[in-house]
Amino acid sequence: MKAHVYVVSKRTVLDPQGQAIQNALRKLGHADVTDVRQGKYFILTLDDSLDGAAAHSEVERIASEVLCNPVMEEFSFQID
Amino acid sequence: MKAHVYVVSKRTVLDPQGQAIQNALRKLGHADVTDVRQGKYFILTLDDSLDGAAAHSEVERIASEVLCNPVMEEFSFQID
Repeated sequence: MKAHVYVVSKRTVLDPQGQAIQNALRKLGHADVTDVRQGKYFILTLDDSLDGAAAHSEVERIASEVLCNPVMEEFSFQID
Repeated sequence: MKAHVYVVSKRTVLDPQGQAIQNALRKLGHADVTDVRQGKYFILTLDDSLDGAAAHSEVERIASEVLCNPVMEEFSFQID
């Protein structure tokens, strides 16, 4: 079972990396890209003995306590 | 229109960051997590005047030429 966790900085937090990428893309001719945000992506492999609900709550705890800094970032995840 | 681009190192490439996270999780009691890979996540906002096919080919070019190092990484994306 795999969990995909996405962590991005909150909308209110400046994202200079994303802005640098957007500037680079504009100079390369990709003017259609009006905004870029960079975040982190984690793929967790979970033991198959876990049931769906247990996996969901474990991944939610891991994301909120370890992978994401809740002051500046927010996360989402999906399990498949 | 938003495009979500996911970049992860290839399976054959060592991922020391992911290993460090997995070790930390094991010490914190999350022994159910048997593997962690860390990657990058980009959210591109595209001009709404682009149609679906044009957006798809533009994001594919951006991902393969700018966001991903094809020697060590692979990408996937979705547009919504």
